[in-house]
Amino acid sequence: MMSITRQMRPLPLRSVKLTDSFWSKWQETLRDVTLEAIYQRMAESGRLENFRKTAEGQGRHVGRYYDDSDVYKWCEACAYALALGPHKLLKKRLDEVIELIDAAQEGSGYLNTYFQLEHPDLKWRNLGMMHELYCAGHLIEAGVAFFEEVDDRRLLDVAIKLADHIASIFGPGKRVGFCGHQEIELALIRLGRAAGDKSYVELARWMIEKRGKSPSIFEAELDDPEAMKLSPWARGHLLKDGVYTGEYLQDHAPIREHEAIVGHAVRGMYWYAAAMEVAEGDEPLAAAVDRVWRNLTEKRMYITGGCGPSARNEGFTADYDLPNLTAYAETCASVALIFWSQRLLHMTGNSDYADVVERALYNGAISGISESGDRFFYTNPLESRGEHQRLPWFDCACCPPNIARLIGSVAKQIVSVSDEAFWIHIPAGFEAETSISGVKTRLVCESNYPWSGEIKVRVEPAKPVRFALRVRIPDWADDVQTELPGLNSESEWDQGYAVFDKLWQSGDTLTMDFGMTPKWVEANPRVLDDLGRVALTRGPLVYCAEEHDLGYPPQLFSADLDAPVEQNSMRIKVQGFREKLDFIDDIYAAEGTTECEETEAIFAPYSAWCNRGANHMAVWTRRA
Amino acid sequence: MMSITRQMRPLPLRSVKLTDSFWSKWQETLRDVTLEAIYQRMAESGRLENFRKTAEGQGRHVGRYYDDSDVYKWCEACAYALALGPHKLLKKRLDEVIELIDAAQEGSGYLNTYFQLEHPDLKWRNLGMMHELYCAGHLIEAGVAFFEEVDDRRLLDVAIKLADHIASIFGPGKRVGFCGHQEIELALIRLGRAAGDKSYVELARWMIEKRGKSPSIFEAELDDPEAMKLSPWARGHLLKDGVYTGEYLQDHAPIREHEAIVGHAVRGMYWYAAAMEVAEGDEPLAAAVDRVWRNLTEKRMYITGGCGPSARNEGFTADYDLPNLTAYAETCASVALIFWSQRLLHMTGNSDYADVVERALYNGAISGISESGDRFFYTNPLESRGEHQRLPWFDCACCPPNIARLIGSVAKQIVSVSDEAFWIHIPAGFEAETSISGVKTRLVCESNYPWSGEIKVRVEPAKPVRFALRVRIPDWADDVQTELPGLNSESEWDQGYAVFDKLWQSGDTLTMDFGMTPKWVEANPRVLDDLGRVALTRGPLVYCAEEHDLGYPPQLFSADLDAPVEQNSMRIKVQGFREKLDFIDDIYAAEGTTECEETEAIFAPYSAWCNRGANHMAVWTRRA
Repeated sequence: MMSITRQMRPLPLRSVKLTDSFWSKWQETLRDVTLEAIYQRMAESGRLENFRKTAEGQGRHVGRYYDDSDVYKWCEACAYALALGPHKLLKKRLDEVIELIDAAQEGSGYLNTYFQLEHPDLKWRNLGMMHELYCAGHLIEAGVAFFEEVDDRRLLDVAIKLADHIASIFGPGKRVGFCGHQEIELALIRLGRAAGDKSYVELARWMIEKRGKSPSIFEAELDDPEAMKLSPWARGHLLKDGVYTGEYLQDHAPIREHEAIVGHAVRGMYWYAAAMEVAEGDEPLAAAVDRVWRNLTEKRMYITGGCGPSARNEGFTADYDLPNLTAYAETCASVALIFWSQRLLHMTGNSDYADVVERALYNGAISGISESGDRFFYTNPLESRGEHQRLPWFDCACCPPNIARLIGSVAKQIVSVSDEAFWIHIPAGFEAETSISGVKTRLVCESNYPWSGEIKVRVEPAKPVRFALRVRIPDWADDVQTELPGLNSESEWDQGYAVFDKLWQSGDTLTMDFGMTPKWVEANPRVLDDLGRVALTRGPLVYCAEEHDLGYPPQLFSADLDAPVEQNSMRIKVQGFREKLDFIDDIYAAEGTTECEETEAIFAPYSAWCNRGANHMAVWTRRA
Repeated sequence: MMSITRQMRPLPLRSVKLTDSFWSKWQETLRDVTLEAIYQRMAESGRLENFRKTAEGQGRHVGRYYDDSDVYKWCEACAYALALGPHKLLKKRLDEVIELIDAAQEGSGYLNTYFQLEHPDLKWRNLGMMHELYCAGHLIEAGVAFFEEVDDRRLLDVAIKLADHIASIFGPGKRVGFCGHQEIELALIRLGRAAGDKSYVELARWMIEKRGKSPSIFEAELDDPEAMKLSPWARGHLLKDGVYTGEYLQDHAPIREHEAIVGHAVRGMYWYAAAMEVAEGDEPLAAAVDRVWRNLTEKRMYITGGCGPSARNEGFTADYDLPNLTAYAETCASVALIFWSQRLLHMTGNSDYADVVERALYNGAISGISESGDRFFYTNPLESRGEHQRLPWFDCACCPPNIARLIGSVAKQIVSVSDEAFWIHIPAGFEAETSISGVKTRLVCESNYPWSGEIKVRVEPAKPVRFALRVRIPDWADDVQTELPGLNSESEWDQGYAVFDKLWQSGDTLTMDFGMTPKWVEANPRVLDDLGRVALTRGPLVYCAEEHDLGYPPQLFSADLDAPVEQNSMRIKVQGFREKLDFIDDIYAAEGTTECEETEAIFAPYSAWCNRGANHMAVWTRRA
C-alpha cells in the first residue's frame, strides 16, 4: 500500500456550482421537491412529533427506535441544499426542526427521543442493537454540516453538548462502549476537525480500535435481560448455530486483522470510512481498510456499485455471490460505498477509489430516487419481474434522506483541491473557485457528462500560477484525446490521473475526450448469476432494458454481440433475438421447439429504470 | 372433460411385489432403515412421549402443535411396509406406538396431544391454523391402511372413535367447520369406503363444498383473541395488504370456481385429491379439479414434478415463476401431487395424469430421501451452490414419513385393475396377482425401469380369459416397439394407453421397448429462469450435473447440443465447454475477456444428487 498522507481536501459546497444537466437537475429537484417531500413524511409519521413530545416531557414515542436519525440526515441534506443557494421554504422548515431538536435535548446533553420517552432508565444499556450512538452521530454530522457549509452554529451547539455527554461516559479509563451500528466514529472525527478539538477524533479512533476485541461488549449485552427486552431479535442477528460471531456488526476481529467485507453493509462501510480518516501515518490500519475495500470491489460488488446481496443481514455473503433478481443492494449501502471510497481517494490520490465512487454514484446510488424526486428504492435489484417499485416512504426510512445528503454534497465527489493541485475526479460540469498555490483561481468545466465524454476545462487564475491540474482517466476509457495549447511536454500519468503541471494563465483551456462508445461487459465467471450474460455500459453508466421500452420482458431478449449498437440520445439500440411466445403451450418440450425472431431492443440507463411504473427489467442480458 | 366414472382401483399391496432394482431397493431400505430411523427421531424429539404424557394426564407438550401427524404418517407407512412382508422390529415398534395412541385417546374420542396437554379449553377453537383435523386425518388414514393392508383393526377402532367425535361436532345442521390444513377430507372418504359407511364420505364432501364460501370461518377466527393466542402468525399468512384473501389455504372461492392453483401447496393438493374422490357423476366438480391440475402441471410445475416455488407460503406464486436455486418444491408437495394425480387417473383413465405421477415419483419426490434411507430433503431445489443437504430430521418433520408412506405404497401408482382390464401405468418390474373378468390371473413384468425401457409382461391366468391389458405410453416415448405373438390386430390406443384386448392364455408375453435415448428438453420461454438452458432427460428421469462428478461447479459448464451424448450405465456423458477461471481476476471486464475450454461432463439422475455431501448442482444447463 501507498504511503498514508492526506492528498487533498474537498471544497466547500458554496465554492463549486454543478452545471451539467445531470447534477444540476438532481440538485434542483432536491431543493424543490425531495427535501420538502421528506419533511412531509417525517411530519406525517410522527418523527417530528417525537421531538415535541420529548421537549414537553410527555407522550409515547411513535415509530422505530432509530427514527431520530432520519430527521438528522434530512437536516444535513438541508445544510447542503442551502449551501447551494437560499431557499425560503426550506429555511422555514429547518428553523422549526432545529428548534424542536434543541428543545428535546436534556440538560446533560443526552438526546434520543425513543429512550427519553420510552426507556429513560435503559439509556446506553443496549449499545449493540439500539442505535443511540448511531442517532447521535447523525445529529453531529448535521451540526457540522450546518456550521461548515452555511455558517450556522445552532445545531453544532446541540451536537457538541451531546458529544461531550458521550465523551463523559465512554472512552479510555471510562466505560468501553461503541455502537452496534457504526456512524458515531465518522461523526466524532468530523466534529473534532470542524471544532479543532482532537479529543473527539481520539475518542473515535479508540472506538474503532476497541471493536472486535475479546470480550465483546455486544456479546455481553446478550446476557443482560433488561437490555434484551429492547431487542429480542438480537440473537437472530448475532449468533450463528448458537455461537456469537459478531460478523453482522463487524465485531468478529480487530479491524487490523480484517480481510473480507462481512455483515451488515452500511454499518461496515461507515466504519471503514471512519477508520481511513484516522489512518494517516498508520499504514497497517490503512492496509486493512484497503484490503477489505478490495475484497468488496473486486469480489462482492454489483456492476452498478450495489453492495450487500442479502436481505437476511442487509449485507454481504460470499465472494462472487451476486444474485440479480433478489439483490438487496440497499441505496444506503451504495451511498456508504461512495463515502468510504472518497476517504480512500483523499488519503491516497489513487483513481481506483474514484472509479468506484463514479460507478456507485451514477448507477446503484442515484437509482434510489425517482426522476420526480419523491419516491425511493430501498433495494436496488439488477433484475425485476415487476415486483419492484419506488415508494414515497418506508417504516425504516434511512434511504430517502441518505440519497438526499449525497445529492446535496455531490460536488465533494467531483473535485478536490490540495496545496498545489486541483483534482477532477469526475468530469462533470462545474464552476469552482478556490485558492491554489496561494492564488485565487476559478475553474470552469464545460461538460455534458455522463451523456458525453467531451469536456473543456478553462482555468482562470487571478494571476499566472503554477499548479498541477489532475484529471482522472476513468477505468472505462480506453481512447482518451487531450488538447492543451502551450503544454510543452505530454501530460504525466500518476495513479490513474492525467497530470497537467504548468504555469496556468487565465483562459488556458484543456480539452479532453474520453471516447464514450457503448461497450459490452462480462462478469468474472465465478459470478454464477451472470454466466452467459453481458451488460451494456457507456461511459460511467450501466444500462438496462425495460419492458416499458421493449413491449415484452427483456429477459426474453438475447443480444447479438457481433452487430453494431446504435446510440440515440440517452438510449442505445441493440440488435438481437426475442423468444417467441405465441406458438408454444407446453411448459417443457424437446430442445428445438421454441423459436426466436430477430429484433432490436432499446437499452436505457439503469439508474432511471422504473420511472414509468413497475415492470420487467434486466441489466444482464443473455448473449445470443 | 371426460365423463366421470371410476375407471379402476389399486391392488392391495400384498398382491403386488415390486421386482425391479429401483423400487425393490427403496422398499428394502424403507423396511430396514427408514422406518426405524424415523421411529428413533420421533422418540428423541418427544413426539412419542407426548402421547405417553397425554395418556397419563400430566406433563407439558414438547415440539410443534401438529407433531402427532408425523407419528400417524409413520404408522401408515409401517402398515404398507408390513404388507410387503413380516418384520419383527417394525412390528414391535408399532405395537408400542399403537398402544400409546390408543391410551392417549379421550373417552369422547378426541385425540390431539397438543390440545390435551396444553389447551384443553381451546379444542376446535382455531381450525384455520392449529391442524387438529389435519392430525385426525392422518390418524384415520393410518387406521384404514392397517385395516386394509394388514388386516389389523386396532388403529381403525381409534380412528372411528375420533371420526365419530368429529362427526358429532361438524356437519350439516351442526357447526360449520373444516381444517385450515386439508387432509381430513381424504381421510374421511377413505374411512367411509373401508368401513362401508357413506356418512363419512358425505361429511368430507360437505367440508369440501363449504370451503371458500362467505362468510369465511377462518376469517372469523382472526377476530377471536383466544384462538389467535395460539397462532399469532395467522394474519401474516391470511391477509394481503390487511385484507383476508384466503388464498393461502384455498379459502378464496368455492372449489367449483377455482381456476389456478394458489397458496400452500400440500394443503391444496390433498384437498383437490379428496374432491376428485367424490366427483363421480359430478362433472362441474371434476372439471374444476382438472382445471386447477392443468394450471399446475402446464404452468407452475418444475420439470422434476416439484411444486410450490416459494418458501414464504410453502406454495404457489404465479404462472411460470419457477426459480431453480430458491425452489421450495417441498418433498411433501411432490408426494401430494402424486396422490392427487392418481385420483384423477383412476377416475378418468387418462395417461396425462400418470405422466405426472411418473415425473414426480422418479424425480422430485424420491429426491427427498437419501440413498442411505435416513436423511431427507425438505426442499428440492433444481440448482445448488452447496447450501443444500439432506438432514436426519426437521422441527417440522412432515416430509420423512410422507416419503416413507409413498415408497411403501408405490405399487398403487404402478398398476391398477378394473373389472375387465389390467392397467400398467408405470412399466416397473412387478409380480401381481388379481382377479380379472372373474379369473385369477398372475402378471409378471420383467423390467429394469427406469434404467431400461425394455419390458416383458407375461400373463398367467388360471384359465384363458379375455381382458384388456392397458399399458401407458409415456409422454417422453416417441419410438415404441411392441411385440405380442398371436395378437391379430394392432393394439388400439385409448387416452395414452396401448390397449391389448384379447383372450389371454397362460404364458402369453407382451414385449415392449419404450426407446430410452437421452434427450435435451427446453422450457417454455415464459419460464424466465430457464431461458437459454436445457435439461437432460432419459426416460422418466431428469438428470443433473454435480460438482462431485465434474470437479467444478456445473454452472460453469455449457452443453454442446450438436454433439452426441454417451450413455454409461446410470450416467450420461455430455460434450461441451467449461468457463476457465484461472486467468481472470477482475470482477467485470470487456466482453471477450473470459475463455472457455472444451470438455465433457457427467450427468446423473437428479433424484440421487447430494448423496456424497453438499455441493454445486444444476438441472438446467446453459446451451453453448
